Amino acid sequence: MSLKRFFNPRSVAIVGVSENPQKVGHLVARNMIDQGYDKELYFVNPSGATILGKQSFKDLKSIGKSIDLVVLAVPAPIAVSYLERVNQVGCTNVVMFAAGFGETHTPEGDILEKDLLKKAKEYSISVLGPNCIGCINTGSGLNATFFNTIPPIGNISIISQSGALGSAMLDYLAAKTHIGLSHFVSLGNKSVIDESDCLEYFLEDTATDVIGLYLEDVRDGDRFSEILARVSQRKPVIVLKSGRTKEGSQAAMSHTGSMVGDDEIFSSVICEAGGIRADSFAEFQMLLKLYSLGAVPTNRNILVLSNAGGMGVLLADEIVNQKLHLVNVSEDTKIKLTRAFEDTKKITVHNPIDLLGDASAFDYKKAIDLTMKEKDIGGVIVLLTPQANTEIIETAQVLQKVYKLLKFKPLYPIFMGKKSVSAAHSYFEKEGIASFRYFSELPCALAKMCDAREIQSQISANGLTPEFSIQIATHIFDIDSMFIEQEGKPFLNQYDSLKLLEWSGIATAPIYHATSRDDLRLIVEKVGFPLVAKLASDKVTHKTEVKGVITGITVM
Amino acid sequence: MSLKRFFNPRSVAIVGVSENPQKVGHLVARNMIDQGYDKELYFVNPSGATILGKQSFKDLKSIGKSIDLVVLAVPAPIAVSYLERVNQVGCTNVVMFAAGFGETHTPEGDILEKDLLKKAKEYSISVLGPNCIGCINTGSGLNATFFNTIPPIGNISIISQSGALGSAMLDYLAAKTHIGLSHFVSLGNKSVIDESDCLEYFLEDTATDVIGLYLEDVRDGDRFSEILARVSQRKPVIVLKSGRTKEGSQAAMSHTGSMVGDDEIFSSVICEAGGIRADSFAEFQMLLKLYSLGAVPTNRNILVLSNAGGMGVLLADEIVNQKLHLVNVSEDTKIKLTRAFEDTKKITVHNPIDLLGDASAFDYKKAIDLTMKEKDIGGVIVLLTPQANTEIIETAQVLQKVYKLLKFKPLYPIFMGKKSVSAAHSYFEKEGIASFRYFSELPCALAKMCDAREIQSQISANGLTPEFSIQIATHIFDIDSMFIEQEGKPFLNQYDSLKLLEWSGIATAPIYHATSRDDLRLIVEKVGFPLVAKLASDKVTHKTEVKGVITGITVM
Repeated sequence: MSLKRFFNPRSVAIVGVSENPQKVGHLVARNMIDQGYDKELYFVNPSGATILGKQSFKDLKSIGKSIDLVVLAVPAPIAVSYLERVNQVGCTNVVMFAAGFGETHTPEGDILEKDLLKKAKEYSISVLGPNCIGCINTGSGLNATFFNTIPPIGNISIISQSGALGSAMLDYLAAKTHIGLSHFVSLGNKSVIDESDCLEYFLEDTATDVIGLYLEDVRDGDRFSEILARVSQRKPVIVLKSGRTKEGSQAAMSHTGSMVGDDEIFSSVICEAGGIRADSFAEFQMLLKLYSLGAVPTNRNILVLSNAGGMGVLLADEIVNQKLHLVNVSEDTKIKLTRAFEDTKKITVHNPIDLLGDASAFDYKKAIDLTMKEKDIGGVIVLLTPQANTEIIETAQVLQKVYKLLKFKPLYPIFMGKKSVSAAHSYFEKEGIASFRYFSELPCALAKMCDAREIQSQISANGLTPEFSIQIATHIFDIDSMFIEQEGKPFLNQYDSLKLLEWSGIATAPIYHATSRDDLRLIVEKVGFPLVAKLASDKVTHKTEVKGVITGITVM
Repeated sequence: MSLKRFFNPRSVAIVGVSENPQKVGHLVARNMIDQGYDKELYFVNPSGATILGKQSFKDLKSIGKSIDLVVLAVPAPIAVSYLERVNQVGCTNVVMFAAGFGETHTPEGDILEKDLLKKAKEYSISVLGPNCIGCINTGSGLNATFFNTIPPIGNISIISQSGALGSAMLDYLAAKTHIGLSHFVSLGNKSVIDESDCLEYFLEDTATDVIGLYLEDVRDGDRFSEILARVSQRKPVIVLKSGRTKEGSQAAMSHTGSMVGDDEIFSSVICEAGGIRADSFAEFQMLLKLYSLGAVPTNRNILVLSNAGGMGVLLADEIVNQKLHLVNVSEDTKIKLTRAFEDTKKITVHNPIDLLGDASAFDYKKAIDLTMKEKDIGGVIVLLTPQANTEIIETAQVLQKVYKLLKFKPLYPIFMGKKSVSAAHSYFEKEGIASFRYFSELPCALAKMCDAREIQSQISANGLTPEFSIQIATHIFDIDSMFIEQEGKPFLNQYDSLKLLEWSGIATAPIYHATSRDDLRLIVEKVGFPLVAKLASDKVTHKTEVKGVITGITVM
């Protein structure tokens, strides 16, 4: 399914536009206008009232024009039955906000969801949702959501299975000026459109440079890992997934009604496909920001400059903990550094380089000029704490020059504190530089960026040859269903285990399951001798001990 | 040493007050005035100039009054020689800012530091520093620092071995209104006054409710763990220490010139003494804030209320990962909750309770009223993400009532996002409630608070009976010196190992070291037979293999 027309509609009709400014149907109409959608926009309301200065149509048909996207801001049963009318006007793209489907775990909800699926299939309609908060494409001025903030335009695209997480992310972006949004998609129940469809669309979308994906489950593991590997070759994909613990999985299940696979396998799939798994929302935000601004370390060797020895040490701990390296400053540079400062003070020339508490902006400049010539620097973290005579803004300007003139983007200013450094952070933001108030998730994020690049280049060199765990994982949902079918059994029996390996493309000896002498005769006719017989039991795992293995069978 | 008079001086003289507003000697003078020190304040400057509206004295003696604290804002050699004049006016408390001592790793620096120590001892002067940025007591209006912000008054006391970290912390506090500072001490080289002296003073200081301690090394392990255990019984002590990795330790060494002990043992010491070790500066800040506001969980059972199912699941993961528990909501309450909402929607009544994206302030109120009656709730985390009609301020007001009227302090509002929720965070701050923009370090901080309380109550029940690792650790610096003496050897030999165990109060067989037959004779005379002889070698660890062990010796 192509979502190109879905996100770039030449005409949009909103069904259920309300005069009440609190209602979803009103908020969406307002957002479409505020986001600057300048193509054909129609409101549908049975009363035909004028809403937000626009006369509404009594129904979809009476618009009398071709419609590319229909936004259904009406309750669940009406929304489902409305698909027929959507089909009648020849439209195949629908956003459906209504809740009250499978997520309710009620018989009525399940029936409604099945009905929705049937109709969507029958009419070939791409439905976003239900139980979602819509979608945005800032490039086309499309804002079919009922958020209360209009996000700034940028190169980040977000796919979120949670509307709430999506709104927190949009609210965060709304306060920023240096980073912004390309697309936002709230998946909801993902009855029709799922994460893989969206990823596939973003692969070709030129306005999207980095993709953030929040998941609670995966619809089709096989397709997902294949598409993720393809997309990751061209654009970083940051994945945040809940349900890391048993309790979290339970909560996810009661939240979405979905089956959640084994979390470690999920992590391997993401990682081996070249995606980047964020461990927290804060890390998710940080990775999106870093990629959006192109602040990607070129390798694992990090140099630290600071006016705060103690902080430098804390940061060095964290860098090493995250399997990054502290650049070994060459003896030659050490001598030059010592000389450059010896008239005024004795700085620490070992990385983390400590310019001492009285470091001026010029001191930072001198140290950067001398150390940037070191080879193999993957990134420079510049720590500043506001002390008595610290030249905060001046130091920020020094760093801006390195970033802009030298085009050295893996530069990470950490200006600590709050009151005195706020102006510097605003300055960095204005200049499009990712700055930080503390290093918290930064070393971990940088390490993940390095990991991802290494895996991407492996995939790039060897072609798309996903590793073992991807192949295993594509069957994770099959395994889940096996366990569900065989509820209460703590492990797969030998037959199912070998079948799983076979599916995963691993060479296995042919295995057949015989429950009677007749079964056995049929198998022997097919494969001939010699054979090995093994006891097939869910209770007995150590077969040899109970004489359950007979080798070298050559006669029936 | 009592620091009561040090931090509450009836008169202060600043030596080296300058007319140049950039100089330390000027900044300190200005800070004393700005902090509101209203007792006797004297400036010393050889010119006798009028500075900041105050006529300065040519020297200390010419003041002609008794001085409780002398602040030396003069270079290192002058500062050391000045101690004689401090002694002449009968003063025993000195703040010394100057750098250029042992931390420079130069022969001159070492000589100067030894000279300082000798004079301080001879005159019984309590010196803070050198190479420090001074101290603050907001209660007495003392601000003998050269910071550029005046921190607000509060109940947090900070002891920092890093001036830079201290300034970042003060800058953070300067932007806050609901939390503030009682004392700040920059330890510098801690040649005389060390962390234990300060802890002992804060034990009795009524204005201090929580202590934050940043360390790079420990001066006297024995005394430190004993005092920490005593203080932790009465006030939480949060410890941040650098040098967790080998590289970090090296950096710490080149930063402070100090020997850094084994980090795991340090952690055990802190933990078993009932202190709380923060893993990052962000966690350090969070723990100080939570304790300062009394937002301490009463047990490990956490209830989560949210308008964001996905976020609730992410948080549930983190709660369980941190060994906190999700409160099991009783069936009775679940029924009541379902009934309370059934007219409008079907909420998730399993913890994390999901009030859905359209949750109103009244919905939050209903859910809190019903769930607060559950027994054994240790804390309630209330998640809010700004969605279309979210009543942000109104929900904040609901929570404020629970906090103030019900006096339920372990209430943790997490209002996510940035733009829409800023007003709510300002409101919480005004009301003295710790609120958060994301849960990042919160579950970990709450778990550490629970751990600490459990250990404190053990210590309280059993008296001060520190555990094994404290006793071991009190000798960590002896071990360090052993290793230094025996440089190049990767392990302690058997003799030193057994001596260490003996020091630590562990019963060991008596052991004597003989290097000659004469040595042996003396030992036999002392202890008699039977004896075991073991080879004492730093090269041979497996003695039996080389026939290096002879048992059952009964004759010479």
